[in-house]
Amino acid sequence: MQAFLKGLGAHWPVVQAPMAGSQGSALALAVCEAGGVGSLAAATLSPEALRQELTLLSAQAQGPWNVNFFCHTPPPHDPVREQAWLDALRPLADRLGTSLPSGQAVAGRAPFSRDLLELIRPFKPPVVSFHFGLPAPEMVAEIKTWGSQVWSSATTVEEARWLEQRGADVVIAQGLEAGGHRGMFLTADVTTQTTLMALLPQIVRAVQVPVLAAGGVAHEAGVQAALALGAAGVQVGTAYLLCPEAQTSPLHRAALVSDRAGHTALTNVFTGRPARGIVNRAMRELGDGATCLSARAPAFPLAGWAMAPMRSAAEAAGLDDCSPLWAGQAAPLCEPLPAAELTRRLGRASLAASPSNT
Amino acid sequence: MQAFLKGLGAHWPVVQAPMAGSQGSALALAVCEAGGVGSLAAATLSPEALRQELTLLSAQAQGPWNVNFFCHTPPPHDPVREQAWLDALRPLADRLGTSLPSGQAVAGRAPFSRDLLELIRPFKPPVVSFHFGLPAPEMVAEIKTWGSQVWSSATTVEEARWLEQRGADVVIAQGLEAGGHRGMFLTADVTTQTTLMALLPQIVRAVQVPVLAAGGVAHEAGVQAALALGAAGVQVGTAYLLCPEAQTSPLHRAALVSDRAGHTALTNVFTGRPARGIVNRAMRELGDGATCLSARAPAFPLAGWAMAPMRSAAEAAGLDDCSPLWAGQAAPLCEPLPAAELTRRLGRASLAASPSNT
Repeated sequence: MQAFLKGLGAHWPVVQAPMAGSQGSALALAVCEAGGVGSLAAATLSPEALRQELTLLSAQAQGPWNVNFFCHTPPPHDPVREQAWLDALRPLADRLGTSLPSGQAVAGRAPFSRDLLELIRPFKPPVVSFHFGLPAPEMVAEIKTWGSQVWSSATTVEEARWLEQRGADVVIAQGLEAGGHRGMFLTADVTTQTTLMALLPQIVRAVQVPVLAAGGVAHEAGVQAALALGAAGVQVGTAYLLCPEAQTSPLHRAALVSDRAGHTALTNVFTGRPARGIVNRAMRELGDGATCLSARAPAFPLAGWAMAPMRSAAEAAGLDDCSPLWAGQAAPLCEPLPAAELTRRLGRASLAASPSNT
Repeated sequence: MQAFLKGLGAHWPVVQAPMAGSQGSALALAVCEAGGVGSLAAATLSPEALRQELTLLSAQAQGPWNVNFFCHTPPPHDPVREQAWLDALRPLADRLGTSLPSGQAVAGRAPFSRDLLELIRPFKPPVVSFHFGLPAPEMVAEIKTWGSQVWSSATTVEEARWLEQRGADVVIAQGLEAGGHRGMFLTADVTTQTTLMALLPQIVRAVQVPVLAAGGVAHEAGVQAALALGAAGVQVGTAYLLCPEAQTSPLHRAALVSDRAGHTALTNVFTGRPARGIVNRAMRELGDGATCLSARAPAFPLAGWAMAPMRSAAEAAGLDDCSPLWAGQAAPLCEPLPAAELTRRLGRASLAASPSNT
């Protein structure tokens, strides 16, 4: 079951989830050194910063590592919708005394591209993973010629089958409890999103490739539960946000260890796509009805542009009202630990769960 | 860990969830005979029918059994809201060619009461369980003087602590994936509802009493995962709906074994409270925005009255458009099995999960 991670050279069936904006190579390297699979989130890095991080990773990583990209289709600009979004944000901006941008929306995240493929080629990453599906088939095929594995996240059984058919070597089953962006790409209907207990066994039955469990796995018992449900390993995000090696902002860190961490919700107000974070003022005030989702938000990633100056101003005043506080529902189970210690704890839990496979 | 169920006299740490409207004593008796804890859902039974079922159960049950009540506070009538709800239903009723009721809303479910306490007293049920909190403290105390255990469901850590403080002998951690009504009673905010992976370990840490896992447990691996997360046993609903001993309607059964079973959502359009069922026409058309929840639905249980004639007419035409098709997110993992066989399969899975406790 966990053989594929051993084959890759990992000591533990534990993958640190890529978390754009909250980590760099330091976190990934610490995880690799402890025997897990460290990941680098490339979505918010400039090409130069990405090259620098990859240079560090490929020179220093002990064992396999992973570089992760978003592969959404950039949406066309929609000036009417962008203006309507600014209008929706104005009351909140006024109350906070913050400003709104003017002009056209700016995309804060670039999708995977031919240029990025060429950038990573010299590094031959052991794993190249994607969120929101997969890039064009010829790029997937080309990456695999380097000996790299290609991984991607599925939030439904249909997405898992789609990924396997298009060459994914590993499917990451992302339960509804997971923090950050839903990887959903065949549907935009959030009612289709199921929890790990329901999703993981269905995906394990539906595909032949190894399946990693993501969402709600934050401590030893979570690892054992995920392996009992058929996972070949776990991908853990929120727990790693609390590591000293992560670049989690002080406000984000404070929210994660507060009582507020027990109340997360899906929201699209920060980027345009549903993502799970700790409920804050922007999520509550901009969400439709009893949700933290807004039908008015521009398409991903354009919604983020309008919130950026509000976020900066609020953060300067010590407020996280406009900051994305990504976290999974298991955040209250997380302990602040060095990344190596966390990796080993989670890894050792896998021994108790399935001794015959480790 | 599972000692409390042994102490109660059950052979397996498996509880058949009470499912109002879809089962009677026949299902409960089959579960008891196989060594699990069978449950009778009283919420939709007349006093006479309840007495009849309890007579059968207490005479024939081998091992412990459970009778379950709702303990909501009946809402006052709100003629304006009830009329607005009829107006909201009219387009759907017109398209289906069905009728709407007139006059005041009728409550289809009665809460636990002094009369019901007196009715069950002679039967001294081994377990009396509640949904939506607990009845008045003096009733809880009185039930416990019979030697009966009192159980109730928690959907948040706060609810679990509240139940323990008020005398619950067992807390049922109801994950977001569970079918049927959310047991939530300290909050009406559905964003507070967390999945079993996140909720169960937090409740196990927060209370001293045994915790049962409900939601997403439909097959052997689910039992093992729940026990790994700290559960003292499991409460399983949806899988029992497919048993021949259940009274699940033919339309409901057909939906449960169809591809549609993979898409459930929380909806309040059938009763006024959020409950999880397979998505159908009424849920889609009456839900606000992208949800299956309507802010216009009258308070529980008054929303149900308006849908009743629409449901009857649609069902007579072979349509489940207006029927509550309660199901958990793990419905696709369920197999149609006799209740005794299902109970034993789930029970035997517990041996592999925690050999030292069984």
